[in-house]
Amino acid sequence: MFIAMNRFKIKCGSESAFEEVWTNRETFLEGVAGFNGFELLKGSKFSEHTLYATHTAWASKQAFEDWTRSEAFRKAHVGVGSTKELYQGPPELELFESVLDQ
Amino acid sequence: MFIAMNRFKIKCGSESAFEEVWTNRETFLEGVAGFNGFELLKGSKFSEHTLYATHTAWASKQAFEDWTRSEAFRKAHVGVGSTKELYQGPPELELFESVLDQ
Repeated sequence: MFIAMNRFKIKCGSESAFEEVWTNRETFLEGVAGFNGFELLKGSKFSEHTLYATHTAWASKQAFEDWTRSEAFRKAHVGVGSTKELYQGPPELELFESVLDQ
Repeated sequence: MFIAMNRFKIKCGSESAFEEVWTNRETFLEGVAGFNGFELLKGSKFSEHTLYATHTAWASKQAFEDWTRSEAFRKAHVGVGSTKELYQGPPELELFESVLDQ
């Protein structure tokens, strides 16, 4: 299992708008080969931002990389730039391989 | 769903030892009320450390908090201090509530 995790610092007051973007977004992930699940997680509130993370689970690193080069990826990211004003800084992408799963 | 995520910076060269600790560890999590799964994830290698994360999924924040006060938690953490020399700095605990699960 391979997990792509994106970490977002969302400006205080913009939390609902950010969650709405994800709730209403067409991800085009259903049916993508190797796609195993997606989660949007809300973390702690800091003085100027709230931490969010997305976890996208894949069967392998290869499946994730194939997706980033696909038409489904391109379509899912159309218009993403227009939500920039909700962010305090750019999202941080972190990639993980599963070592243990219990 | 509630996710407790712990982030570990493991000194370069200590990765196998760290993974072994987790592989051989008795977590005492099976059968704990509200426990939904555990994963050990290996992230990127940096100049002086490799990033690891653990994800522990719970039915609710309450289930997580009840566990941290339980005998199972105490037993799972016996001897954890003895692995300190593998770490570059203390682990960072982050808590998340699931907003979307697809």
